[in-house]
This record gives sequence, C-alpha cells and structure tokens, in this order.
Amino acid sequence: MRPAVRLLGLDPGLGTTGWGVIDFDRGRLAFVACGAVTTDSARPLAARLVQLASGLEAVLEAYGPDEAAVEETFVNRNAVSTLRLGQARGIALLVPARAGLPVAEYLPNLVKKTVVGTGHAAKQQVQMMVGVLLPGARSHSADAADALAVAICHAHHRGAARLAARHPPGGVPR
Amino acid sequence: MRPAVRLLGLDPGLGTTGWGVIDFDRGRLAFVACGAVTTDSARPLAARLVQLASGLEAVLEAYGPDEAAVEETFVNRNAVSTLRLGQARGIALLVPARAGLPVAEYLPNLVKKTVVGTGHAAKQQVQMMVGVLLPGARSHSADAADALAVAICHAHHRGAARLAARHPPGGVPR
Repeated sequence: MRPAVRLLGLDPGLGTTGWGVIDFDRGRLAFVACGAVTTDSARPLAARLVQLASGLEAVLEAYGPDEAAVEETFVNRNAVSTLRLGQARGIALLVPARAGLPVAEYLPNLVKKTVVGTGHAAKQQVQMMVGVLLPGARSHSADAADALAVAICHAHHRGAARLAARHPPGGVPR
Repeated sequence: MRPAVRLLGLDPGLGTTGWGVIDFDRGRLAFVACGAVTTDSARPLAARLVQLASGLEAVLEAYGPDEAAVEETFVNRNAVSTLRLGQARGIALLVPARAGLPVAEYLPNLVKKTVVGTGHAAKQQVQMMVGVLLPGARSHSADAADALAVAICHAHHRGAARLAARHPPGGVPR
C-alpha cells in the first residue's frame, strides 16, 4: 500500500506569500495546514527576501512536504510590480528545490480549471471550492486558499509531471 | 588604520549573473576577482535558481566580501523576461543578505555615471573604464565587467548608504 504524499502549494508575493499543505492518498485530499508568510514593507528588499525564505523554511520544517507546486502568477500591470513579484517567486521556487523537493509550476488558468472547472473562475469561486474540497480550510485567508488551490491542482496533475520528469529537458510542466 | 573593505558587485540574470570582487582601501580600488555564474537553460526553472544560489555562495566562500551591491536592472521588453529577471534578482539579493552582508542596490544610470561620468554611457565605455580603474580586470566578460562597475559604484556611494542605514526605513539606497 502506497502511503499518502504530502503536497505544498505556494502563491508567491513580496508582501504576502500564501502556503497550503495537503495530504493526497489514493485520490483523496485531506487538509493539513495553511497560512501566509508576510514581509515588513518598511525593511529593505534584501531583508524582506530573507524574511520570506526563513518563513518558507519554517513551513517545510514544520510540515515536511514531499513535493511543492508554485503558481506561475503573471502580472501585466507594470514592469516594477512584475519585477517585485519575480523576486518573491524566485525565493518560493528556490527554498523547496534546495530542500530536495520536486517543484512543479502551474498557470493560474489551470489551477482554476482544476479546482472550479473553468479557467476563468472568480477568486471567490476558487476559495469556495477549496472549502468544499478541503473541509477545515474554510476560515483561512484568500492567499492561503489560493495556495491550497495550487496544491489541489498539483495533486491532480502530478502524475503527468512525474512522467515528464523522466524525459528531460522540461521536467516540470509549464 | 582602517583595513580595506572587500566589495562584491552583482549584475543578475537568469542565464548569466556577473560578479566582481574589489578591495577598497582609503580611496584606492584594487581588483580581486570576477566571473559569471551561468545556469543550464535545459533545466527546470527551480533547478536553475538552485544553480545560481550555489554559484553565488561559492563566490562568497572563496572571496569573503564584507558588503554586496546589486544592480537594479530594469527590463522594459515584456512581462515574461521581467519576471525571469526578477527571479534571478531575488536570488542575487537573498544569498549575500542571508550570509549577513549589507546589500545595497543601485540604478544602472548611477552605476554608469559613477564609472564613466555620464548616466547614458554605452556598454563598451563602461567596460573600458572598468579596465582603466581596475588594471588586471581588462580581459574579462561583459557580465563580469558590469558587476565590477556595480562594485566600483558601491565603493563611491557606500558612505551615504551606511549613513542611511542608521535611519530606517529605507536603509538601502534605491
């Protein structure tokens, strides 16, 4: 009997990075924990990135996930906010990868399609479906709910990701 | 007598991150070493960020700089390349900050103005002046020369940066 696999989902941002941990056992999802790592906007950028890395390392240590998935958040607003997001996203990818976890990436539309059934679902629909799929996760923040949605998406698509990983280059689904 | 301070300059990029180390002693600059950390474009993004972090940690270990400076590279081309740059830049800021180094940031125009005398200098002018200011650094790559220019810029402006650090928020010059 194959044991459950523990999955970490991340929704990165410089100010707030949502995280969510679920167990996935023979098609069943179970909520483990979720939350958000916030950084102090009054501090210099490098210090904020250290806060983010330390916060994510504490989550890894506390919950010991086997695999990680990061949302491929895409910002069109302007180059400055895209650069800020990229810096936080670099940390969100680095920390689990350095801990030896496989790290998958999923586009927001695939996350929505997997969790709600349509790639253009509203934020509230995603949060509601996360609460339905993971009882006990209802009362948490929007950032944490988004991260749990990424973890759910990974639970559904990790089979394909693992297959692709055996045929590099391109071992992580984009 | 105050000993020399060793400065690390970084010009971040996902494919190639230039680095340059100089000593600064009572107004005098001395070339120590420079190079570039490259990542394998055939590998998944998270693995490339791990390569970058490990490469920068090796530079810190080999040369033991006291302070670091990172260019605030700004890309207008498109959101995808800006996001890629941001991810690499996050690692370039995180690694020295986690090692306990103060990390300053400088806009490209200030780097050019400091090294060449004008904020709109061509890339070749920057490289030539780096060779003039740091004999022995002439033969290196463009990425390494840009990183040395950032280190030279920091040597000239770190007094102001240290002063600002005593009056947070905003301890690092933007």
